[in-house]
Amino acid sequence: MTYYLGVDGGGSKTLAVIADDKGRVVGRGKSGCGNHQIGVTIAEQSIREAIALALREAELAQSDITYAMFGLAGADREADFRILRPLATGLGFERHDVVCDTVIGLRAGTRQPDGVVIICGSGTNCYGVNASGESLQVGGFGYEFGDFGGGSELAVEVFRTVVRAWEGREEPTKLTALALEALGHDSVESMFHHYLDEGKRAPHTLAKLLFEAADEDDAARRVLAKQGTELGLAARAVIRKLGMERDAFDLVMVGSVLTRSDNRHLVAAIEELVLPEAPGCTLRTLELEPAAGALLLAMERDGRDVREAVYEQLHLDLAIKERVES
Amino acid sequence: MTYYLGVDGGGSKTLAVIADDKGRVVGRGKSGCGNHQIGVTIAEQSIREAIALALREAELAQSDITYAMFGLAGADREADFRILRPLATGLGFERHDVVCDTVIGLRAGTRQPDGVVIICGSGTNCYGVNASGESLQVGGFGYEFGDFGGGSELAVEVFRTVVRAWEGREEPTKLTALALEALGHDSVESMFHHYLDEGKRAPHTLAKLLFEAADEDDAARRVLAKQGTELGLAARAVIRKLGMERDAFDLVMVGSVLTRSDNRHLVAAIEELVLPEAPGCTLRTLELEPAAGALLLAMERDGRDVREAVYEQLHLDLAIKERVES
Repeated sequence: MTYYLGVDGGGSKTLAVIADDKGRVVGRGKSGCGNHQIGVTIAEQSIREAIALALREAELAQSDITYAMFGLAGADREADFRILRPLATGLGFERHDVVCDTVIGLRAGTRQPDGVVIICGSGTNCYGVNASGESLQVGGFGYEFGDFGGGSELAVEVFRTVVRAWEGREEPTKLTALALEALGHDSVESMFHHYLDEGKRAPHTLAKLLFEAADEDDAARRVLAKQGTELGLAARAVIRKLGMERDAFDLVMVGSVLTRSDNRHLVAAIEELVLPEAPGCTLRTLELEPAAGALLLAMERDGRDVREAVYEQLHLDLAIKERVES
Repeated sequence: MTYYLGVDGGGSKTLAVIADDKGRVVGRGKSGCGNHQIGVTIAEQSIREAIALALREAELAQSDITYAMFGLAGADREADFRILRPLATGLGFERHDVVCDTVIGLRAGTRQPDGVVIICGSGTNCYGVNASGESLQVGGFGYEFGDFGGGSELAVEVFRTVVRAWEGREEPTKLTALALEALGHDSVESMFHHYLDEGKRAPHTLAKLLFEAADEDDAARRVLAKQGTELGLAARAVIRKLGMERDAFDLVMVGSVLTRSDNRHLVAAIEELVLPEAPGCTLRTLELEPAAGALLLAMERDGRDVREAVYEQLHLDLAIKERVES
């Protein structure tokens, strides 16, 4: 039997999946942060741990893997690959490659070779490939380098919006009650002093409150619209620079913030920027784990032509589980 | 002779000034960061160093100082004062007190007991006192706790605006040429990779480019307007909560970002928010070093009624030197 390994290493979690050549998943392993920009030792540990768990579940040895594809957040520039190529080689798979997590996200979300992907998980990123095979990444390096948002920064937006409403810098917001409940405080004053006293940061999990509040709350909608606009600006820059304005392609939306089923406020803001520029663009919320994109790429690197049955099998085995119903 | 010591400890510099009871400055000393929230050891060293230099220039001993007033950035909450009161006592001045730098800024900028002050130096802060003596601070704790801006964050805004224009996320901006010259790079690409490779942050000094570009550049004007709006929101919150809407008072603008002579884009944004709320409010750019406010408070704590001649003398000796002409 032929087996492929696909790894999705993100800022908050790493998922390794082993599938056969029919797309049947035989093993999976999950661990922590796989982004070397956050910590190279932790990233390597996470990747090793996820692979070991997947191999154990599959009851396979490393040598049973025909091709291993690593899709890693933080694999952005040549400087990153100088770190990540030796790391990947050291994992011991004879045939393997490392690509950015944008690349596996795009592959998981479209069946065309060209397309654009926007990621909004812990952080944000955007990447595209045009019909000529030219590619471009815009973003992925954090606020100072032009990005905005992702779960970490959106959590901060929730926290500070609640503080500002309490102080009278902004209008009252429904985020207040939700945040106090989530953080276990009776009052904003108590929350405020606790977080200052402890030098703590708002937990990532606050970001999801934006979706809970958005239908009835201006402040939450403003933050989501800003996030959508930011992602739309990145996608539009990629589309323009790659000359994709008249092409028919998918814009794949990847990452925990974008793949929620209640993502319409975000999607509306993205569409508003992108569709006038590229009317042939179709927005698609990613339905498969990005690791499925790594598996598909591994199969293709092994010379396989991916058939419909494989996609169907991957949809059965690797549909995004964490998709939140509104 | 009677001598007073006034200390202004900020995020980037500490200034200690000694004056006699006529307001004549006889000694001054300058040193680094005096904000204990950035580093308590460094803050104490800076304060000690500035005082030592001032005493040496004045050829005075510590015991010659009748009253010492410390106006410190980061003296915001009871938790801060629990650190700062022992620190100040340890400096060895028999009669002394510690207040927030907002308090000395307000005192330096208005002759009324009531008023509102907004600070925009390294960071931002806002504070007010109403005619009944009730006071309120809004801000001073950084982005997560509701603030935006000050020199450090504005420098980041300049840097990322240049990056985003280069990538096509935003329109071309005149900030690009100014930033490249300031940072000594030939291209944004070279700047971008250099800062990523070195893990460096944009230097504070980039903030001033906003003022250079603003007349002819939308992007720079947008950042300045946002900064002004943020300061206006804080001031408006203080005015509302202290019930000052019908009072005649000064809104004193303090800190290197606000005391520039080319501050009109900032001032316009502040006025737009504050004046409809409080038509009796007069915006005043601080003309004296905030340390003058510390001296005035020291004199008042010593039971002196500050006369016109003292203000005139302080304007001769402590006019803000760093005020940048456009």
